Amino acid sequence: MKKTLALLAFLCLLLNGFSQNQDSVFIKTIFDNVLTSRVAYQNLEILTKIAPGRLVGSDESIVAQKFLEKYFKDLGVDTVYLQEFKTHSWACDSSSVSILKDSEIPLRCDALGTSVSTPISGIIAEVIEVQGLADIEKLGTEKIAGKIVFFNRPMKDIFINTFAAYGDAVDQRAHGPAEAAKYGAAGAIVRSVTTSLDDFPHTGSSRFPDSRIPALAISTLAANLLSMELKENPKTKIRIFVQARDLPEITTYNLVAEIRGKVKPEEAIVVGGHVDSWFNSPGAHDDGAGCVMSCDVLRIFKEMNIQNNRTIRAVMFMDEEMFQSGGKAYADFAAQNGQKIYLALEADEGAFTPEGFTIDAPDNIVKKLHEFKPLLETYGIRHIKKGGGGVDIYPLKKSGVPLVAYVTDPQRYFDLHHSANDTFDKINYRELNLGSGCITTLIYLIDKYGVE
Amino acid sequence: MKKTLALLAFLCLLLNGFSQNQDSVFIKTIFDNVLTSRVAYQNLEILTKIAPGRLVGSDESIVAQKFLEKYFKDLGVDTVYLQEFKTHSWACDSSSVSILKDSEIPLRCDALGTSVSTPISGIIAEVIEVQGLADIEKLGTEKIAGKIVFFNRPMKDIFINTFAAYGDAVDQRAHGPAEAAKYGAAGAIVRSVTTSLDDFPHTGSSRFPDSRIPALAISTLAANLLSMELKENPKTKIRIFVQARDLPEITTYNLVAEIRGKVKPEEAIVVGGHVDSWFNSPGAHDDGAGCVMSCDVLRIFKEMNIQNNRTIRAVMFMDEEMFQSGGKAYADFAAQNGQKIYLALEADEGAFTPEGFTIDAPDNIVKKLHEFKPLLETYGIRHIKKGGGGVDIYPLKKSGVPLVAYVTDPQRYFDLHHSANDTFDKINYRELNLGSGCITTLIYLIDKYGVE
Repeated sequence: MKKTLALLAFLCLLLNGFSQNQDSVFIKTIFDNVLTSRVAYQNLEILTKIAPGRLVGSDESIVAQKFLEKYFKDLGVDTVYLQEFKTHSWACDSSSVSILKDSEIPLRCDALGTSVSTPISGIIAEVIEVQGLADIEKLGTEKIAGKIVFFNRPMKDIFINTFAAYGDAVDQRAHGPAEAAKYGAAGAIVRSVTTSLDDFPHTGSSRFPDSRIPALAISTLAANLLSMELKENPKTKIRIFVQARDLPEITTYNLVAEIRGKVKPEEAIVVGGHVDSWFNSPGAHDDGAGCVMSCDVLRIFKEMNIQNNRTIRAVMFMDEEMFQSGGKAYADFAAQNGQKIYLALEADEGAFTPEGFTIDAPDNIVKKLHEFKPLLETYGIRHIKKGGGGVDIYPLKKSGVPLVAYVTDPQRYFDLHHSANDTFDKINYRELNLGSGCITTLIYLIDKYGVE
Repeated sequence: MKKTLALLAFLCLLLNGFSQNQDSVFIKTIFDNVLTSRVAYQNLEILTKIAPGRLVGSDESIVAQKFLEKYFKDLGVDTVYLQEFKTHSWACDSSSVSILKDSEIPLRCDALGTSVSTPISGIIAEVIEVQGLADIEKLGTEKIAGKIVFFNRPMKDIFINTFAAYGDAVDQRAHGPAEAAKYGAAGAIVRSVTTSLDDFPHTGSSRFPDSRIPALAISTLAANLLSMELKENPKTKIRIFVQARDLPEITTYNLVAEIRGKVKPEEAIVVGGHVDSWFNSPGAHDDGAGCVMSCDVLRIFKEMNIQNNRTIRAVMFMDEEMFQSGGKAYADFAAQNGQKIYLALEADEGAFTPEGFTIDAPDNIVKKLHEFKPLLETYGIRHIKKGGGGVDIYPLKKSGVPLVAYVTDPQRYFDLHHSANDTFDKINYRELNLGSGCITTLIYLIDKYGVE
């Protein structure tokens, strides 16, 4: 009996080894395809050229979806459709910040989403510099009311992972202006949440549960300059100016494209990125890259004639940046139509060198996905482990869908995130293609072996 | 007895764990220092600004060494000196390539080191396009003599590691022109050995054991254009033009700076990069980065007052690109002066995200160094393994010196290598600083624990 079991174990090992080897050989052909393809790279060049600043509600956001829709139709996948939904949005027309000295010294700035407008002549007020939200309560209404609050705590360099550094600093942008508003501030400006010391403002959303005030991001160099001015003259006044509009009801779209499964077409593996970008940014890394890599997954399955068991579905989500309405709308749509999502993967960390996948799912699924790691290490994957999924796929979690995030080398991401600096020339086609290859491979393995 | 041994083993494990933990804590302080420092980054900005195109024999190469000499002196390390040696060199004054049609169509080009000059009116000849050296022998003198041979095999995209792709393609540049000369070619032009499809020529050295001919690199876009022209009209003529000079005897310098060891000052751990760059390039990644990271090792030891057992010696090698004379001169100098080199580490793969270290040494030393890996994984090190050392430290191998190369993420390196595109703005200060941190940490551990 013991001998039989040992023999059986040996055979299993052998077969497993054989299958791993077969998989290795096939995965190599996926990478041979993707590394010699310029399709994703060219798609991203076009997307960033024809539709920069594609914030939800903008014409550019629709241009972007139409372009990707045409791409999928030309590719000849089984189904392509725009999933319509209604939401609200916000648009910025113009903004400025300047220091008032003998003459006005302009500071590079962009309004934060959902800043309100100032009067057309702007708001002129003294500035109170703070290091974070806690300072606001300490200073109280007496010191804050009527002033412009200047949040100036830099993103810290000591974190190894810049996402941790971002998490450590972004509360100033996300909640600072609302906190300042509570104490009667006339407006708020926030040091750009970026690893880069340069003259690009980095915008982002600012949440106002109650009353809203004008709120802007200024570049890190501008923040340093203003801080110096304030040290010399604490009574320094600045002028802030924002013209922005709420868009109470708009019609917009997620884009869905799929290759039907040959065995279980009713089960879909979703792969996606978000098509929208901030109004000030071409959104090459954030998240044009995630979109074109997801497009590339379908291209590779189609071109290589991979016989997928389950439906492989690419979703280009609208509105990750402002209100995350696209992710919610898609999850609702899937539930209402009885669509079964087997697993969802999101790529929203740019097109840098692949680093890994994080999984928001029960441990047994994490363990199963981790078994694929040896097959991906050659291509740069360091880890497949428990962790966050993605903002757009998060609403699927309540239906028990396992979520996966594609993780890239984080060192450069926050140099360009949410800024005019997030341009196509910052994309390296090899890094982008390695990303498409790693995502396609993981989806191929999930489809072949399942995750339970 | 068994119990005593078990207890002893347990204690060893415990102490080892404790020491690892102590090391982790200390290494964290190294990274806290380096990640918040702009010194290496600023040094590189200055170096590339005041001394671009610092090929051995150029004024710029001396300006670069003097700048770094001053940096070390200001840092206040124990010893700083320029190690003088004599060598020969080569300089390019001017070059051009153009297609002769109704008008001349210029192609972006740079001469290859050690090309000879053409007559002042250039050389006009028909072109024969080949895919590699083997084609030359097949075509023979009849087809080659009097023609300009055009080596046009692209660097392949399918390699995961671009250094492998480079190795696969660079024979055309290194040996192609000499092979063409053997069969009477009038000149040679080589498709730039780069992963990038752009209009930057990438130069490099071309070896001529016997007679030399004019030899140039053209950009990949120019190569595609010329190849198309030749398909339309195989009789297409081009004009090549080079004005270059041999410099038969020059005096130049390696730069040496050290912090004396407190316990074994006679044993030195060498860390270095090469200060020279191609005449067409600011040499930011290749290898200004290796130099300023090596400078940073001494800065960190000094600033943190680390009590090094052995001497920590930074060497800025001259002339890696042309004749590798600096590495040889330093090895000879060390041998003549009875200097004992305990280990040598070279950084010459640019300032991209850290990936690992490769070691050219006996297995026991590789094994010992590999034990340090867990302490470095947090900071991006994926591997410490057997592999190549470095061009400049290679001459130390014959004296039995263990050699180590710092390895970075290779995806972007050959986009800019040996070209005008290797500029300071391609440097990410976090990636650079992580490199300084990883190298400093490895040297700290080697100094503390030894490698035997």
